[in-house]
Amino acid sequence: MNNKIYFTPGPSELYPTVRQHMITALDEKIGVISHRSKKFEEVYKTASDNLKTLLELPSNYEVLFLASATEIWERIIQNCVEKKSFHCVNGSFSKRFYEFAGELGREAYKEEAAFGKGFYPADITVPADAEIICLTHNETSSGVSMPVEDINTFRDKNKDALIFVDAVSSLPYPKFDWTKIDSVFFSVQKCFGLPAGLGVWILNDRVIEKSKALLAKRKSIGTYHTIPSMLEKARVNQTPETPNAMNIFLLGKVTGDMLQISADGIRKQTEEKAALINTYIESSKVFSFGVEDAKLRSMTTIVANTTMLPGEINKILEPFDMAVGAGYGSKKETQIRIANFPAHSLEQVHKLVQTLKEKIG
Amino acid sequence: MNNKIYFTPGPSELYPTVRQHMITALDEKIGVISHRSKKFEEVYKTASDNLKTLLELPSNYEVLFLASATEIWERIIQNCVEKKSFHCVNGSFSKRFYEFAGELGREAYKEEAAFGKGFYPADITVPADAEIICLTHNETSSGVSMPVEDINTFRDKNKDALIFVDAVSSLPYPKFDWTKIDSVFFSVQKCFGLPAGLGVWILNDRVIEKSKALLAKRKSIGTYHTIPSMLEKARVNQTPETPNAMNIFLLGKVTGDMLQISADGIRKQTEEKAALINTYIESSKVFSFGVEDAKLRSMTTIVANTTMLPGEINKILEPFDMAVGAGYGSKKETQIRIANFPAHSLEQVHKLVQTLKEKIG
Repeated sequence: MNNKIYFTPGPSELYPTVRQHMITALDEKIGVISHRSKKFEEVYKTASDNLKTLLELPSNYEVLFLASATEIWERIIQNCVEKKSFHCVNGSFSKRFYEFAGELGREAYKEEAAFGKGFYPADITVPADAEIICLTHNETSSGVSMPVEDINTFRDKNKDALIFVDAVSSLPYPKFDWTKIDSVFFSVQKCFGLPAGLGVWILNDRVIEKSKALLAKRKSIGTYHTIPSMLEKARVNQTPETPNAMNIFLLGKVTGDMLQISADGIRKQTEEKAALINTYIESSKVFSFGVEDAKLRSMTTIVANTTMLPGEINKILEPFDMAVGAGYGSKKETQIRIANFPAHSLEQVHKLVQTLKEKIG
Repeated sequence: MNNKIYFTPGPSELYPTVRQHMITALDEKIGVISHRSKKFEEVYKTASDNLKTLLELPSNYEVLFLASATEIWERIIQNCVEKKSFHCVNGSFSKRFYEFAGELGREAYKEEAAFGKGFYPADITVPADAEIICLTHNETSSGVSMPVEDINTFRDKNKDALIFVDAVSSLPYPKFDWTKIDSVFFSVQKCFGLPAGLGVWILNDRVIEKSKALLAKRKSIGTYHTIPSMLEKARVNQTPETPNAMNIFLLGKVTGDMLQISADGIRKQTEEKAALINTYIESSKVFSFGVEDAKLRSMTTIVANTTMLPGEINKILEPFDMAVGAGYGSKKETQIRIANFPAHSLEQVHKLVQTLKEKIG
């Protein structure tokens, strides 16, 4: 039995109800039934409808289920870029998304910020021929966030470009203005507290039209996971391929549980827990903020510079059945990352902060 | 509680040990740990090593984990075809694979057989410029199999072409001669009795070299799921993206269970159960073989023509807690499909046949 609480930024703790929902899934044979059956369609519809309610999606938005957010990066480029994309790059994940465009034969512009730094949209000029603008709400590698009010400034200056927002490790925390963007995506193993293996792509009619326009021009936009192919099935609550039905079922259940708290309730809890962690970092002798500009600090992936090796910190936390994440990539020995997801209770965060304070200072 | 036994050809019954393994996964927090951790690498290695043992893979073969067999069709075309592919098409799935080539801008040759018919390799001439030959060991839609000895004849006449075999709904039943082919793939929700959400791609050094050669020519072969990208991570027992770790864990456990019986033991059981079903079909007043040529009848997906509607048959089976699959696509009212997978016990097949005999005749 593994009783450790993982504050690692994904995969991370499962939402507290997941074990029971998984047993229900086994009892109801969710992993056995056909993905063309009525029962599966209900499972799909529950997950899709709950997400639409939780995130307050307008009626021109659709929800699609893919295998991972990594896959969604690829599908965005294939389906929505004929020639040129634009990316704000300030960490390992936004950089990888940018690279995908080149690997698929498109030309990609980038605006770059150093690791741990963010963007100030007033300073950014997106080239007029960029067909899509790719922003990252929450860079899981560096803990830098792009505030929703900053995201909202792009549309006014770039009427035609489609705006995509990577909210892999922050949704349902950010409250997006859906009229100012066109698409958001996330993976379920972060803030939704599920086992990995499902990426969720939220997109509006403008994105759909773009993919259809490329197809009409006889451009190759992929095979089973083109937007038109996925949409045709989504409209009958199905997927083109046999999907990860267990995870779609669990997502429906966990979003149902979240609706009991409400999205605003989750936001309030997230901020309360983040304040606890941040107050501690501010006073610590070992840790300091990884992101200097307080306005750009992520609420869900809190990154701190450390003078003690992350491995040493986790050795100290081990007897207390807790673990934090190491820094990402080249920062793996000089930073820690603390996930503050809905699955992490206030009590658990309290215990983490208290233990770090007492044992490390 | 759903106590029905599903003889549907995928998703289908879970392997009898899956429930316990899933609880173990929850206890060990397999859905929580990082996909870059030592623990995950052990989980990956167990699944990969067990498959290599069970299928008796030579040392020049690698095992890769993707999201579905549908995804693998796409990756094969992207990674291994510069211009032309060749496909034996005799059902909905082999047809869809063929179509993928065109959707990705390649030129695809096909040899076609009617639904329910198979191929006689002596009659087939593969064009000399076909870079890959795509064969289907088991057409899940029609129940037609291509015997391993027939698959083995292609290599002698086509030395250069890479030979891919779709064994989605038959492995581990077929005993392939790995020197006569280059790659095989399957999905776990068929004969491995797992929930859907994982495709397994087995490929040799020739396939790897082809993808590297295309990349060296500056052809786009994809992004995170190119063969070189997946291979780089596979060599350290990882995947490029955060994978469906729960399913990789379950695959390792179930292949471990299968090794207790041995692949030959599973083959023997499969043949014994198929003989029961086939003997019944032969004597039935309602059913007749969907595949005329006895040599081409699948052992794992048994398809029968029916004069009674599949819906009516399942109504009769309902009180006995059993269900069979309807025919595929246009055959959905005139055929049934009976999955004969390792998860279906001899006792369950006995009960199915007995009930059909008594209630339908």
